[in-house]
Amino acid sequence: MENITYDELSVGSSGIYSKILTEEDVILFAKISGDVNPVHLDEAFAKGTLFEGRIGHGMWTGSVVSAAIATVLPGPGTIYMEQNLKFRKPVRIADEVTVTLTVTEKIAKRHVVVLDCQVTNQDSVVVAIGQAKVMAPVEKMKIEAPKLPLIVVS
Amino acid sequence: MENITYDELSVGSSGIYSKILTEEDVILFAKISGDVNPVHLDEAFAKGTLFEGRIGHGMWTGSVVSAAIATVLPGPGTIYMEQNLKFRKPVRIADEVTVTLTVTEKIAKRHVVVLDCQVTNQDSVVVAIGQAKVMAPVEKMKIEAPKLPLIVVS
Repeated sequence: MENITYDELSVGSSGIYSKILTEEDVILFAKISGDVNPVHLDEAFAKGTLFEGRIGHGMWTGSVVSAAIATVLPGPGTIYMEQNLKFRKPVRIADEVTVTLTVTEKIAKRHVVVLDCQVTNQDSVVVAIGQAKVMAPVEKMKIEAPKLPLIVVS
Repeated sequence: MENITYDELSVGSSGIYSKILTEEDVILFAKISGDVNPVHLDEAFAKGTLFEGRIGHGMWTGSVVSAAIATVLPGPGTIYMEQNLKFRKPVRIADEVTVTLTVTEKIAKRHVVVLDCQVTNQDSVVVAIGQAKVMAPVEKMKIEAPKLPLIVVS
């Protein structure tokens, strides 16, 4: 992972990051957050709701936005200050969400950068929009992503 | 889990929800989001940053806020519309965060409720603050939380 420093960023700079929501992701999100609502976990229950089937947790989409910021733009060394999100459409298992980040403002004091965040699915439907405020890194950094341990869900 | 309907909620209604950040949570959050930054995963690397040690992902705190809304206030049947968050202080492994939600506004059209969200740690330090907008459930619901599968990290 290589970051983009405050000086390298301009208004209009953009980056994208995609992730597919898996069955396992939904279970793991329920585990780490404690949100075990059956609309996420139980297809029979979810079928009877207005969503007509299981949906991912809204904040899973938020977690993917945060990962886009942390790994792509500006990337490693970024300090997360604020995030606003509006959830527009449900995300379902096997959907691929793509986060598009675009720099809309640079504030020299504390090297703050404001990012427009748009999240679409594989059909180009907007599932979430928002804005992030971060302190961008000032030093160039290229780091090896640590390997995660094995995770088994059974 | 039992929900609190739109009619049962008043401005000032509040609820709390707590969660301890575990080592496993950090790994699982990295997995589901893709944010594998070493500031979260590698103590030796993180020691050299301004955080002076590993920190949880900011949006893990966001996921706990979302779980508070989805399971406590208003609870099951709530539809998440918007979430704003300001990250104030890092959360570290073994920290216990407590989300306090307070209704600040009720909007009859579409039974919308605005919630103030405050997240503190075990030392009563505010780690994040924000605001959520949700559609509160109109029907009373009491549901059994589905059991999660076994999750093993090795």
